[in-house]
Amino acid sequence: MKLTITEFDPTDLVLQETLFHTANGYLGVRGSFEENVPENVQTIRGCYINGFYDTIPLHYPERLCGFPEEAQRLVNLPDIQTMRLYLNNEEFSMSKGEVLQYKRELDTDKGITTREIRWKSPNGHTIDIAITRMASFTYPQLFLTTYSVASVDFEGKIELASEINCGVSNFTDSNDPRVASERIQHIFPKSAEVLGGNVIVECQTGASNLQLIICQHHKAIISKGGFNPVTCESGPVENGAVTRIKTDLVPGELLLVEKYTTMSDSRRQKHPRSYALQRLNDCINKGASALFEQQADFMEDFRHNSKIDINGCPELQDGLEFNMYQLLQSTGRDCITSVASKGISGEGYEGHYFWDTEIYIFPFFLYTQPETAKSLLQFRYNTLEGARKHAGIMGHGKGALYPWRTISGSECSSYFPAGSAQYHLTGDVAHAFMQYYYATDDLDYMAESGLEVLLETARLWIDTGNFGDDGKFHIHSVTGPDEYTCCVSDNYYTNRTAQHNLFGAAEVYKRLKASEQHKQAFAKLLDKIKFSEIELESFTRAAENMFLPYSEELGINAQDSSFLEKPIWDIASTPKDKFPLLLHYHPLYLYRFQVCKQADTVLAHFLFEDGVPENVLRNSYLYYDKITTHDSSLSGCVFGIMASRLGLSEKAYAYFADTVGGDLNNKHGNTKDGLHIANLGGSWLAVVCGFAGLRLGKDGLRFRLTLPDEWESYSFRLRYRNSLIKVTVGRQYSNFELLSGEPITVFVDGVERHVFV
Amino acid sequence: MKLTITEFDPTDLVLQETLFHTANGYLGVRGSFEENVPENVQTIRGCYINGFYDTIPLHYPERLCGFPEEAQRLVNLPDIQTMRLYLNNEEFSMSKGEVLQYKRELDTDKGITTREIRWKSPNGHTIDIAITRMASFTYPQLFLTTYSVASVDFEGKIELASEINCGVSNFTDSNDPRVASERIQHIFPKSAEVLGGNVIVECQTGASNLQLIICQHHKAIISKGGFNPVTCESGPVENGAVTRIKTDLVPGELLLVEKYTTMSDSRRQKHPRSYALQRLNDCINKGASALFEQQADFMEDFRHNSKIDINGCPELQDGLEFNMYQLLQSTGRDCITSVASKGISGEGYEGHYFWDTEIYIFPFFLYTQPETAKSLLQFRYNTLEGARKHAGIMGHGKGALYPWRTISGSECSSYFPAGSAQYHLTGDVAHAFMQYYYATDDLDYMAESGLEVLLETARLWIDTGNFGDDGKFHIHSVTGPDEYTCCVSDNYYTNRTAQHNLFGAAEVYKRLKASEQHKQAFAKLLDKIKFSEIELESFTRAAENMFLPYSEELGINAQDSSFLEKPIWDIASTPKDKFPLLLHYHPLYLYRFQVCKQADTVLAHFLFEDGVPENVLRNSYLYYDKITTHDSSLSGCVFGIMASRLGLSEKAYAYFADTVGGDLNNKHGNTKDGLHIANLGGSWLAVVCGFAGLRLGKDGLRFRLTLPDEWESYSFRLRYRNSLIKVTVGRQYSNFELLSGEPITVFVDGVERHVFV
Repeated sequence: MKLTITEFDPTDLVLQETLFHTANGYLGVRGSFEENVPENVQTIRGCYINGFYDTIPLHYPERLCGFPEEAQRLVNLPDIQTMRLYLNNEEFSMSKGEVLQYKRELDTDKGITTREIRWKSPNGHTIDIAITRMASFTYPQLFLTTYSVASVDFEGKIELASEINCGVSNFTDSNDPRVASERIQHIFPKSAEVLGGNVIVECQTGASNLQLIICQHHKAIISKGGFNPVTCESGPVENGAVTRIKTDLVPGELLLVEKYTTMSDSRRQKHPRSYALQRLNDCINKGASALFEQQADFMEDFRHNSKIDINGCPELQDGLEFNMYQLLQSTGRDCITSVASKGISGEGYEGHYFWDTEIYIFPFFLYTQPETAKSLLQFRYNTLEGARKHAGIMGHGKGALYPWRTISGSECSSYFPAGSAQYHLTGDVAHAFMQYYYATDDLDYMAESGLEVLLETARLWIDTGNFGDDGKFHIHSVTGPDEYTCCVSDNYYTNRTAQHNLFGAAEVYKRLKASEQHKQAFAKLLDKIKFSEIELESFTRAAENMFLPYSEELGINAQDSSFLEKPIWDIASTPKDKFPLLLHYHPLYLYRFQVCKQADTVLAHFLFEDGVPENVLRNSYLYYDKITTHDSSLSGCVFGIMASRLGLSEKAYAYFADTVGGDLNNKHGNTKDGLHIANLGGSWLAVVCGFAGLRLGKDGLRFRLTLPDEWESYSFRLRYRNSLIKVTVGRQYSNFELLSGEPITVFVDGVERHVFV
Repeated sequence: MKLTITEFDPTDLVLQETLFHTANGYLGVRGSFEENVPENVQTIRGCYINGFYDTIPLHYPERLCGFPEEAQRLVNLPDIQTMRLYLNNEEFSMSKGEVLQYKRELDTDKGITTREIRWKSPNGHTIDIAITRMASFTYPQLFLTTYSVASVDFEGKIELASEINCGVSNFTDSNDPRVASERIQHIFPKSAEVLGGNVIVECQTGASNLQLIICQHHKAIISKGGFNPVTCESGPVENGAVTRIKTDLVPGELLLVEKYTTMSDSRRQKHPRSYALQRLNDCINKGASALFEQQADFMEDFRHNSKIDINGCPELQDGLEFNMYQLLQSTGRDCITSVASKGISGEGYEGHYFWDTEIYIFPFFLYTQPETAKSLLQFRYNTLEGARKHAGIMGHGKGALYPWRTISGSECSSYFPAGSAQYHLTGDVAHAFMQYYYATDDLDYMAESGLEVLLETARLWIDTGNFGDDGKFHIHSVTGPDEYTCCVSDNYYTNRTAQHNLFGAAEVYKRLKASEQHKQAFAKLLDKIKFSEIELESFTRAAENMFLPYSEELGINAQDSSFLEKPIWDIASTPKDKFPLLLHYHPLYLYRFQVCKQADTVLAHFLFEDGVPENVLRNSYLYYDKITTHDSSLSGCVFGIMASRLGLSEKAYAYFADTVGGDLNNKHGNTKDGLHIANLGGSWLAVVCGFAGLRLGKDGLRFRLTLPDEWESYSFRLRYRNSLIKVTVGRQYSNFELLSGEPITVFVDGVERHVFV
């Protein structure tokens, strides 16, 4: 798809910076302009490496036991975007002179963004500028910009000044709890030098002492008949380095500059300097054209595995393609990073990983790039030690409690009622492991990593809950997904995830115990974590007796044990400017009402439908639909999915349409701080798990196919085990096609279907 | 009583500074030494004015809606204690030379503290030092020190350097949430001058812009035959001012210095400078001897109204006298201050007023100095506007919610689950108004202030709670007194205080409505707060249907609706060094257990016994006694009182003994940060409401007399209406004596008794 803008609206720039950002799972560059913008235009000029953080101390007016002492924050890296253009002494700016033509475009097929401007300078000179940006998927360390200036009627000196500027800081807003509030300098330049035509800047973070190397090389070419010499001089300046490319231009001539920037950091590389330099040289040798081609090939492969076609609604199809592309851009694939809630597109939530990954994003990769899904799991495995430590801090003698928000594995949430108290995240992680297990049957991985995570997380529930006088297993004082009600007893969603976690741990344990091939690894694990089978019995007992709150009167599952006793918030009479409620009401006040920020019980019904009677699914959906504000972007897609499940097709479609365009339409008003990645993942889920009703369990893939009235048909692709299939759903028909791999069997509306061609 | 120490232990100094502090409800000076102490001796050198605060910004890593933006903090004022003594060039210090004799004493009959030292200097000179300190109750602005040096065998130059030193800061400890963590300079000197022999220092706080004036005057006299001239020179120095008193001394001679310090502040006085100077001159004219005499007279009057005699246990009698004296020292009587949880003896809890005042301290004054009790109520009336505002911040459209901790009326708690969520404080305030009403029948005051508070607080409950499907009135998401379980539904204590508040508002409303005399004031009030009688009906309806959690199975009132579903914390197996639990366990972990920091349901049974069956009182006491750690100093006295009520005399006595000596024995280990004033008040309650079983309600005073086995008899005094009575309880007899005023009728063990002589 192509996202195209042909008019420049300065008030929109900060939003466009997010939508047109360029990332590849490793590095992300916001779509700021290469040139300066006037001071009154809001811009969040940003460049990030996924998981590259500084630590900041957490100061509390009242610090209680176990409150984290420091947090991690995604660092806004030195500015590598800036390229100032001068015609004689006139500096190019979109807000000076006259923009005669303008086109800004994101091309997801090519994996690039472009900007084309025909500009008439205040002195009356006209030029054509064309800029292409790419964060390479094949060389993740590379950010490539090509900048061309063609003279229409200009004759004179031209200069491009390209910078690496370390004088940067993170964006802050003390009035919004969703972004950082404290301004601290995080990145410090250590050296800047020019070596063999390459600029090398070394930086270090202020507190976490991480190293970052930025290498840059410029290639300048005069084409279309020009014979004027081009000079290219680089040198260090106070806050970094600058490269000046100068030449003379006459009408018809074109100056093309290729700017190769590679970055490497000490979280991934022992010798980031030599690595960044080597990657730079590799890329220079490859050349811009070949790199762009590789990118296009990569995107073709991506589409081959994930393509969705919607016959009858090109707009939504484009929206979905945009969303899937953003998922790809945002996702770490190196096992030491995951998907930040804003990807690598902005600084909202400080670059932290939440449960968004496992519940909203992971499924897309599980079904389209299982190796990426595995690396996301491996991130959790690699931070298991941190989760054990966190469990200890939270009072537990046993088990692993994954932190609510983190970069490298320690808890970064400073407000536990809507943070660490969300124990469900640990169950969400276990759920992702189980989904991977069901989808891939990758027993080796379960022996290597999966079972350890499942057992340690299962232990947590045993240490958290207790058997009540009713013989049921209860979990007190946790917070479910809905942050408008915190620290409650028996949150239905949490209890369901805990139950699934406990059963799952027992299931995989038994499977591996029986596997001759994994005998040694299995024994080693039990010894490592001192696990005895008595614990396994406690898992099963707790899971079988898990208390799941239910109201006889309403025929619904209650969000928690006291939820239904509270008065219902009057959403209809609440002024529009009071949303999201969290910005306008004290949390304690919200706790006293039946009002949900987001899907909670309804999400549980999507993920854990087994055993829930049809009428309870329906009643619950209808009940919570009325009292949910969707102040979280994680909500609408889930309601859409369950609406599909219940045959409420109008509702389903409305939620879906709303979800797909979430960021494109800046629905939550804060896309400037970054994309709502979970919501993007949710839009994919809404098609595959919503309209097509996909569920994955022990028995494999199950579908309940529906087709929105608005569409003629739709198709999508899925990887399952070693196969790739294409599912097409039309009016009165459906088609399951095997694109590659072994034949598989699926269940469609309860009927077994073999997919063999 | 006299508290006497005859040995100097440097490790104890910081504790003694609290126990020997000198205060009068307005100003408080910690019992630091006049001379320097060595650097390795811990000292918290402090001087405070009740309610004299600076504001500090509250920074939260995640700031949610309604979190207070700033807090108030009691300011450590300029040091006015310092007097350095030099013999020739030897500076006196308790840690140099040899202390031959030492006596430090607090004399509650005289209202002074003294220190007497026979000291042999390193060079072998022996002198006698005698120091007396007093914070005058009749001139609250005055802190008086007399310092005498008598030579035993010394001949030579002697100098006393007396300072006002503004280079001070507050005590901080970032590891203890009960004291301030952030070091900020709060007090700034503006000018220091000497005018007619008086030193005048003007200061201002850094953020709250409050003015403070300190005036000082020294009188020096050589007595016992000395004829050497004495010089006394004052002058400004960098951080304030210094006065140097010099003379020559020979054996047998004595230098006596009277140091008058007065303070005045802009919270009380429009012209604090002239006021402080005028008070200084008044005091100088009066002279030290007369001032000491006035203090002794004041104390005699205090004892006349409050004396407790315990026949059979002088130690506990002394403890009680110490405690009552400290209550007197700590309590503001100017209607713009109250009783800080540490009085004016230290900086713990930053000088804030909590519910301690109304529930633990107020009764002592109500029954011994009703005019002081009234001024404590008036403090709440004067901050009613702040409570309305706070209710608004917490989401309420109506009513008044008193802040959890405050100085001038705004919420200073930055951690709402154990702060603002403690709505019961508002009910506690209403309870104090009702107790005052019952004890004094002061209808004028109820018309003037009381009813407005009762109606506005009652409104809060209506806006907070809701009627459930069971037809009962429920209150969700509040925290009771026990901070080991926060943000719960239907906390029994809270619901009881709310019920009492609602009934009380209706009762006083009806009484005033019927009073011809208060017709005008009544009408004016209804108009002012736009109160209609429909609201009154809602008060009564909510109160009558208040849900009060009860367990059939256990026959106890449940602390809250989910409390009894949780597992019981194993207090016996918890290592001793893990107490108080709040310093060793994350709050969320504690929430998951039946474990109480302090009396909660048991406190409700003490305050609101009506309608609770005898066996429920007993079962509840026995149940909660086992699961309460008493990590709060507000707990033991309440358990003691209820033990008395239930005839568990051994238990009652043990709790009482523990309570009485709380600070004297540094039971909580942090008396260095200030006295536990609520606990001191609780020890008085333990005698009067515990052993003598006093309760006050609509029907007047009721007693259930008991006598501990350890005692022969005890007596105490009470003011009620316009009378003062003396109650004596012996083995097999009791005596009610009318000391002054009209005859009254009381109920003793259910039997009416007329007290007329």
